[in-house]
Amino acid sequence: TMALRPKFDPQSHNLDKKFRLTKYTGLHGGGCKVPNDVLVKLLQELGANPYHDEQYMGGMIMPRLGIGLDCCVIPLRFGGLSLLQTTDFFYPLIDDPYMMGKIACANVLSDLYAIGVTECDNMLMLLGVSSKFTEKERDTVIPLMIHGFKDSAEEAGTSINGGQTVLNPWCLIGGVATTVCQQNEFIMPDNAVPGDVLVLTKPLGTQVACNSHQWLEQRNDKWNRIKLVVSEDEVEKAYHDAMFNMARLNRTAAQLMHTFNSHGATDVTGFGILGHAANLAKQQRSEVNFVIHNLPCIAKMAAIAKACGNMFGLLQGTSAETSGGLLICLPREQAAKFCAEIKKVEGNQAWIIGIVEAGNRTARIIEKPRVIEVQTLEDGTV
Amino acid sequence: TMALRPKFDPQSHNLDKKFRLTKYTGLHGGGCKVPNDVLVKLLQELGANPYHDEQYMGGMIMPRLGIGLDCCVIPLRFGGLSLLQTTDFFYPLIDDPYMMGKIACANVLSDLYAIGVTECDNMLMLLGVSSKFTEKERDTVIPLMIHGFKDSAEEAGTSINGGQTVLNPWCLIGGVATTVCQQNEFIMPDNAVPGDVLVLTKPLGTQVACNSHQWLEQRNDKWNRIKLVVSEDEVEKAYHDAMFNMARLNRTAAQLMHTFNSHGATDVTGFGILGHAANLAKQQRSEVNFVIHNLPCIAKMAAIAKACGNMFGLLQGTSAETSGGLLICLPREQAAKFCAEIKKVEGNQAWIIGIVEAGNRTARIIEKPRVIEVQTLEDGTV
Repeated sequence: TMALRPKFDPQSHNLDKKFRLTKYTGLHGGGCKVPNDVLVKLLQELGANPYHDEQYMGGMIMPRLGIGLDCCVIPLRFGGLSLLQTTDFFYPLIDDPYMMGKIACANVLSDLYAIGVTECDNMLMLLGVSSKFTEKERDTVIPLMIHGFKDSAEEAGTSINGGQTVLNPWCLIGGVATTVCQQNEFIMPDNAVPGDVLVLTKPLGTQVACNSHQWLEQRNDKWNRIKLVVSEDEVEKAYHDAMFNMARLNRTAAQLMHTFNSHGATDVTGFGILGHAANLAKQQRSEVNFVIHNLPCIAKMAAIAKACGNMFGLLQGTSAETSGGLLICLPREQAAKFCAEIKKVEGNQAWIIGIVEAGNRTARIIEKPRVIEVQTLEDGTV
Repeated sequence: TMALRPKFDPQSHNLDKKFRLTKYTGLHGGGCKVPNDVLVKLLQELGANPYHDEQYMGGMIMPRLGIGLDCCVIPLRFGGLSLLQTTDFFYPLIDDPYMMGKIACANVLSDLYAIGVTECDNMLMLLGVSSKFTEKERDTVIPLMIHGFKDSAEEAGTSINGGQTVLNPWCLIGGVATTVCQQNEFIMPDNAVPGDVLVLTKPLGTQVACNSHQWLEQRNDKWNRIKLVVSEDEVEKAYHDAMFNMARLNRTAAQLMHTFNSHGATDVTGFGILGHAANLAKQQRSEVNFVIHNLPCIAKMAAIAKACGNMFGLLQGTSAETSGGLLICLPREQAAKFCAEIKKVEGNQAWIIGIVEAGNRTARIIEKPRVIEVQTLEDGTV
């Protein structure tokens, strides 16, 4: 199982023992996002594309989604069909190139899953080959990343049929996921009502886990600070758990969104749980607020965040995640069933983390949220 | 008209007069491509996706195109529809941010146009904001680039409904163009037969023009060499012509491919006219060779290439182009009509540059090709 995957050993690939993929970037994973407020300002130029809208196509009123959420929804001129697509790319945040490829693919698919789509018609792969790689590094690392990306695409039942590869100072990987489907095959993310509850399908803390693992390797000042609250083994375990969780597809969650009548979802990535909850709240048709009570976190990550004076904002909900879980609005009576069923089907836990109440389309975390310490089990499940 | 567009003046945007967009990358335009042979090796991992294939979908034999050409063609499960999409992104090669945005958009659309598609259902925009921009530079330059990208998308009758924006050492811009269409709306690029002729819709030499313009600004050794064969005004004019040609859409050409029964086409970008001709030749069902006799080049670029000891390979067909023309196979009796019609509709010239003969699916340029010196006219047409 993936839980037993050994650490990436550069020497077993004839690379220098000091080779670290994460050195080929200055920013890691979801942390490379342009801050939300800056992004909104820069993208103003794109004009008044509304978050959601409707369009009269071929005699039908069809939903349309533009910039602002995970995935766009474009009505097509053919019999009630819509084009749904999304793109995402970023820089290495772990040192195992194969797993990095898997994570990049899971991450881009996650945006389709968030809208309840379970089948991806096509995947494009976006690659930036670091201009700082030696030829040997390039010819070793890039094929491993591609292999991981391809394996995840196959696991998702899709295939890679194009893309673009450029030289870039930083190593870069991502993709474009596209599907064409009928209206009953996706779930518009704007139907939350007061009384719904919020479910999260992966634990938080991937950035904390990846960063603290780097500090451990570097034995730097930050390591000296956090070693008072965690052991080396705990950091290694958390790093491994983060890697495993990031590589996991949110596909079962997307399927179960239909079964249990989800009122909308988003996936948790660069803006943290609170940022994405706020984005989702803003899109709602009803006047609702999202209130988060529980924060499931990879074990020990809350302690590290506290020991660092909240530098990650993990408990404030602002710590960037990469390929995080789906945050799903469900009718109250369906939420526990959803969690039981996902545990049954894929073995992984999901958590009820908050509620939907009447409000002004914002999101918040209560003052003293309950931290749930999440351990990945020996068999790879959470 | 665009022919009269003044040079980008940083000071009129309150930027330092020495600000140059092209300094925010180490590689320019199509020149950032990973060399073809390296790319083929790296992408081996993706396995035996054939260049072209057929697939039995819903009772129909439908064409399928994977990696290797401009655009993938994916049969969908709905009534004879196919998904066609393409992505491209690169780094600034001119200093005018607005025009750079227009070029990036025209460049990605060109891959759809090459397969005879004239309508794009959706565009995603890919942006890398240089981490070396000051805040002022970022807030000036990025909106201009987005504005140009958006204007070209609108000119093409499509809109931008998503994308990804990251921080990156080099400034990066590109997109993803997607369309869903019926089989008679696109033209598979594999039906060339002996007796066809090859038509090119834009002049070559964009890389030579952009580079020699930089040398002129820097007054460097290379400028000292080429100033023996070209005047400052000629370099300024060529740079302007290159910018104008790169920003031009190949959409009319795509429409006329249907009218005049094209047997297939490709667009000319990073691998140069010969590289792309060779890629196209390799895909053909019939055993054909492509032979190129004429090289339409932006005026004076051939002289510069010669003065530099063929460093660009312009006359050898290997000089990278950005957002180049379509290279189109047409039945011999249709080619002159195609050229006359495109001149009539959009005002721009196209050239018959070679022939298709029986052979082994390769491409070559004759020993002494005729160079056609191409001037852009006052009204912006070629």
